[in-house]
Amino acid sequence: MNYRIASIPGDGIGVDVTIEARKVLDTAAAKYGFSLSWQEFDWSCERYAKSGSMMPDDGVEQLSEFDGILLGAVGFPGVPDHVSLWGLLIPLRRAFQQYVNLRPVRLLPGTTSALAGRTADELEMVIVRENSEGEYSAIGGRHNAGRPDEFVLQESVFTRVGVERIIRYAFELARSRSGHVTSATKSNGLIHSMPYWDEIFAEVAARYPDVPAQQCHVDALAARMVQAPDRIDVVVASNLFGDVLSDLAAAVTGGLGMAPSGNINPSGELPSMFEAVHGSAPDIAGQGIANPVAQILAAAMLLEHLGETVAAQAIRTSVDEVLTAGSARTPDLGGTATTTALGTVVAETLR
Amino acid sequence: MNYRIASIPGDGIGVDVTIEARKVLDTAAAKYGFSLSWQEFDWSCERYAKSGSMMPDDGVEQLSEFDGILLGAVGFPGVPDHVSLWGLLIPLRRAFQQYVNLRPVRLLPGTTSALAGRTADELEMVIVRENSEGEYSAIGGRHNAGRPDEFVLQESVFTRVGVERIIRYAFELARSRSGHVTSATKSNGLIHSMPYWDEIFAEVAARYPDVPAQQCHVDALAARMVQAPDRIDVVVASNLFGDVLSDLAAAVTGGLGMAPSGNINPSGELPSMFEAVHGSAPDIAGQGIANPVAQILAAAMLLEHLGETVAAQAIRTSVDEVLTAGSARTPDLGGTATTTALGTVVAETLR
Ligand SMILES: CC(C)[C@H](C(=O)O)[C@@H](O)C(=O)O
Ligand SMILES: CC(C)[C@H](C(=O)O)[C@@H](O)C(=O)O
Repeated sequence: MNYRIASIPGDGIGVDVTIEARKVLDTAAAKYGFSLSWQEFDWSCERYAKSGSMMPDDGVEQLSEFDGILLGAVGFPGVPDHVSLWGLLIPLRRAFQQYVNLRPVRLLPGTTSALAGRTADELEMVIVRENSEGEYSAIGGRHNAGRPDEFVLQESVFTRVGVERIIRYAFELARSRSGHVTSATKSNGLIHSMPYWDEIFAEVAARYPDVPAQQCHVDALAARMVQAPDRIDVVVASNLFGDVLSDLAAAVTGGLGMAPSGNINPSGELPSMFEAVHGSAPDIAGQGIANPVAQILAAAMLLEHLGETVAAQAIRTSVDEVLTAGSARTPDLGGTATTTALGTVVAETLR
Repeated sequence: MNYRIASIPGDGIGVDVTIEARKVLDTAAAKYGFSLSWQEFDWSCERYAKSGSMMPDDGVEQLSEFDGILLGAVGFPGVPDHVSLWGLLIPLRRAFQQYVNLRPVRLLPGTTSALAGRTADELEMVIVRENSEGEYSAIGGRHNAGRPDEFVLQESVFTRVGVERIIRYAFELARSRSGHVTSATKSNGLIHSMPYWDEIFAEVAARYPDVPAQQCHVDALAARMVQAPDRIDVVVASNLFGDVLSDLAAAVTGGLGMAPSGNINPSGELPSMFEAVHGSAPDIAGQGIANPVAQILAAAMLLEHLGETVAAQAIRTSVDEVLTAGSARTPDLGGTATTTALGTVVAETLR
C-alpha cells in the first residue's frame, strides 16, 4: 500500500515538529509494510510575505488528490492572524469538508497534570469540535465607519446539516468507546444558535438510547474540566466552543505540547488534515526546544484515519514508553532534550 | 446614610444564599452606622409559572429608584433558560446600562485550589466582562424552517461605544491596582468582531502607557488560566468570553461557591446589581447545603459600590477569618455546616 501525503510545515515551530513527525511516520511505514510518498508545500506566512498569498490559487485542487495532509502550524508576527488563517487553514478545512475536528486528550505517562491529585484514568477525553461553520464565519462588517456610532456585526451560521452530522459523529464515537456525550451549549445567552443546537442534539440523542447524553453550558463545562474532568468523556461542541474547550482540555492534561488534532472528512472522499493543537509559537521557533509529541500523535491519527491502525497504535505506545522512561524530555517536560532528540528516540523506540 | 436595596432572591439556591447575604449586610449596617431599607421582589421562574412573566411589565421602572440590587439566581427546570434569563437578568443588565460585569476571584484562605502547587498570591485576578452587547444578542432567526436546508443565524453586535468603555474601565482598574491588562481575543477565527475589538483595545492601550497591556486568544488564555494563572491580572473580555473565562477563573481558585460578581453602571445614575457567579442549582436548593460565601462577597461588592468601603472590607475580612478558622464549612468546602450556619458565623464574626 502506498499513501500520498502532503506536508505543509507552515510557520514557526510547525516546521520544527513536522520534520520529527515525518521521521516517525517513515519509520512506521518501513516497519509495518506500507509506503508514504511525501510532497512538501511551502505554504506559510513566509510565502505570503513574498507573494501576497498563503497558498496558490489552485491550492485546494493541488491537495485534493492526496490521501492525507500533515500540517505544521500557521501564523507569524507581521501577518495578521485573520489573514494567515483565512488564507490557508480555514479554507482547507472547509473545501475538504473536514467537518470534524477531533481532539483526543489524555494524561501521558511520565507527565503531570496541572490539576491537583488527578490520575491518568480521570484525565482522558475527546473533544469533537464542529469544524466547518458556526461562529467562524466571514459574514459581517462595519457600519457607520469612523463615526461615534460605529458598530460591527458578526454573523454565526448554524445549518441543520452541519449541526446534525457533528452530533451524530460524537454519538457514534461515544458508542464505540462505551462512553457518554456532553454537549456544550449556551442557550441561555445566545438565544438563536444554541437553542437550535440543543434541539438537534435532543433529536440525535433520541436515536442513541444506549449512549448517555447530557448538555452543559459552556461556562459550567469549562469549570467542570478543572473541577471534575473525570465526569467528562466525549464532548461535542460548536466551532468556537470546541476551540476553547480543547485548549483547556489539553491544559488540564499534559499541556499543549502533547495535544494532537485531526480535521476529518469522515466520508474519506476528500483528504483529511492532521495537526498539533498548538500554534506556531514564533518566539521559540528554530531553537530546537519545541515539543514534537503533539505533532507525532497527530501523525498517528493520520495513520489511524488511513486504516493503519496497528502502526498508529505502535506510535502511541512508543511515545508512552519514551515519556515513561524519561530518556528524552524537551524543556516543557522539565528536560533538556532537543526537538530532534525526542523525535529520534521515539522513532528508534518504534523501530 | 440610608440606602434602598432591592432584593430579588430568584430561584433555587438563590433564595438560600440571598437571605444569608442580607443578614451579613444588616450586621454591617448596624456596625458601620448606615441603614438599609430592603424591598423584596418575588421575580422568578415560580412567578413565571403562575403569571407567564418573570417580572411585571414595569419591572425596570420599579427598580430604577433603588440604590442597589441584590440578585439571587434565576433558572428552574421546566422554564427554558432563554426565557428566564432574557425575561429578567439580561433586560435588567441592559436597561440599567450595567455594562461592566466585574468578577474578582482569589484563592480564599482555608480553601484549596484545583490546581497543583499554586499559592494564594498566584491566584488572584479580576475578569472585566462586557455586559451589555456582543455575542448575547436577540438578533437572528431560522431560515427554511423544517426543511433539510434549514439554518439559523445568530448576530453578534459590537459597538464602538460599548467596546471602548469596557476596555477603558479595565485599564482604569489595572492602573488603580498597579496591574496589567490582558485582552481576550479570537481575531484569527471571528474576523469581523474580534479584529474590531483588538483595534479599539490598541487605541485605548495607547492612552495608558503606564499600564502593561497584551492580548491573547481566548483558547490560549483559557489554557493559561490553568497553566500560568500567576501571569494573569486584569482580563478584559467580551460578553461570551468573559462568561467562560470567569467561570474558569472561579474554578481554578476557590470554586463557584466563592465567586461574586457585580453588574455595574459606573455612572451611578442607575442601580447596579450584585450576584454570585453560580446559578440556581435547583438540585440542591432548599437543603441548606449551598455555600453562601459567593453571595456574601457579592453583597460586599454592593457596599463597595455604594462607597461603604470600610464595611465592604470588613465583610471580606470576616469571610477570610471564618474560612481560616474552619469553624463553619459547607459540604463543598469539605464540612457539614448548613448555609445558615455559615452565614450566621460570618455575621457574628463581623459584629
Ligand atoms: C445565566 C446566564 C445567562 C449568565 C450569563 O451567561 O451571563 C450567567 O452564566 C452569568 O455568568 O451571569
Ligand atoms: C489558529 C486558529 C484559527 C485555530 C482555530 O481557532 O481553529 C486554532 O486555534 C485551532 O484550534 O486550530
